[in-house]
Amino acid sequence: MIVYFRGMRTRDDDKQTALFEATIKVVNDIGFAASSVSKIAKEAGVSPATLYVYYKNKEDLLVSTYIDIKQDMSRELLVGFDPDGPLRDIFKQVWIQLFEYIAENSSCFHYAEQFANSPYSQLVNTQEIERYFEPLTQVLQHGIDQKIIKNVSFDILKAFIFYPVMMLANPKHCQNFDSSPENIETAFGLAWDAIKF
Amino acid sequence: MIVYFRGMRTRDDDKQTALFEATIKVVNDIGFAASSVSKIAKEAGVSPATLYVYYKNKEDLLVSTYIDIKQDMSRELLVGFDPDGPLRDIFKQVWIQLFEYIAENSSCFHYAEQFANSPYSQLVNTQEIERYFEPLTQVLQHGIDQKIIKNVSFDILKAFIFYPVMMLANPKHCQNFDSSPENIETAFGLAWDAIKF
Repeated sequence: MIVYFRGMRTRDDDKQTALFEATIKVVNDIGFAASSVSKIAKEAGVSPATLYVYYKNKEDLLVSTYIDIKQDMSRELLVGFDPDGPLRDIFKQVWIQLFEYIAENSSCFHYAEQFANSPYSQLVNTQEIERYFEPLTQVLQHGIDQKIIKNVSFDILKAFIFYPVMMLANPKHCQNFDSSPENIETAFGLAWDAIKF
Repeated sequence: MIVYFRGMRTRDDDKQTALFEATIKVVNDIGFAASSVSKIAKEAGVSPATLYVYYKNKEDLLVSTYIDIKQDMSRELLVGFDPDGPLRDIFKQVWIQLFEYIAENSSCFHYAEQFANSPYSQLVNTQEIERYFEPLTQVLQHGIDQKIIKNVSFDILKAFIFYPVMMLANPKHCQNFDSSPENIETAFGLAWDAIKF
């Protein structure tokens, strides 16, 4: 995990990686309201003064952590992305990579889910987040234009491409789901049937 | 809201209704870890001693609140439920009623989502929860037997029947979704295409 984030994150720094991981741990353990700069700095093994080198305040730390997670997630989803391939193959690959991302980064994912449901979510520039997922939005629109994908709102399409994966990949929701490649592919078949024209 | 829960809840009591609502408010505001019996009693306007008349401890209060929410939700979903009707109509009605439940009870729903992701979820008798939704499981099995519904695991089917609704009905996830009856029905069309044989 640490190696992964070191490679992926913009500011390449051990202390910032430690702060990123400490933020997720503290918030997941005690919630947004009870989390404080001093508790997070302590968990990361740095002084609050060091934390303020990187982040303006608690809000900045929480929001930046969320944005970093979404950026990491979009990169994982888009590994090997080929917008010119068959649409079904594109979405199948994204589906499988999202499943793997959630299964392997459950703490990050849990933080992001909680964050999106918290009042802090109003501080996020949603256009920035949407930009990370822009290649997917473009192939969706292309699929609609080609009458391969149903011509319904993006919200509806996304609810069927991404949300069922989030449930199935989360062991707290689906303790008994056997995440074999066959089952992940079966589940993708339902997603495709939902969105295809 | 208060009137609704008074009517629905098992033990018909103003103080218990106040405790139910206070638990949801306090936990949604400050999280599970920071919530305490004394804070919840204060929010409900009762003494901690009164709280202990109804609940053994914090765990019992949090778990009971979750179970009550799931029971209320299942009742709302199953209003007018007719297991002998056409399967598509049964699921469409459940879908619309789930959408309405989430839209009208966003605090309860948010509490339940957080709870399911918290360590407290391990204290729940999941069989009790599943029993509330048993009529739905039975018609799903009937649909599989009749080759109307795909023969895949219940986890996969549930991920497509219930999870997209949770996303679309939650304004924090889908700010721009216009929840007109037409759009809710369009979204249901995708769910049905996903699960139908």
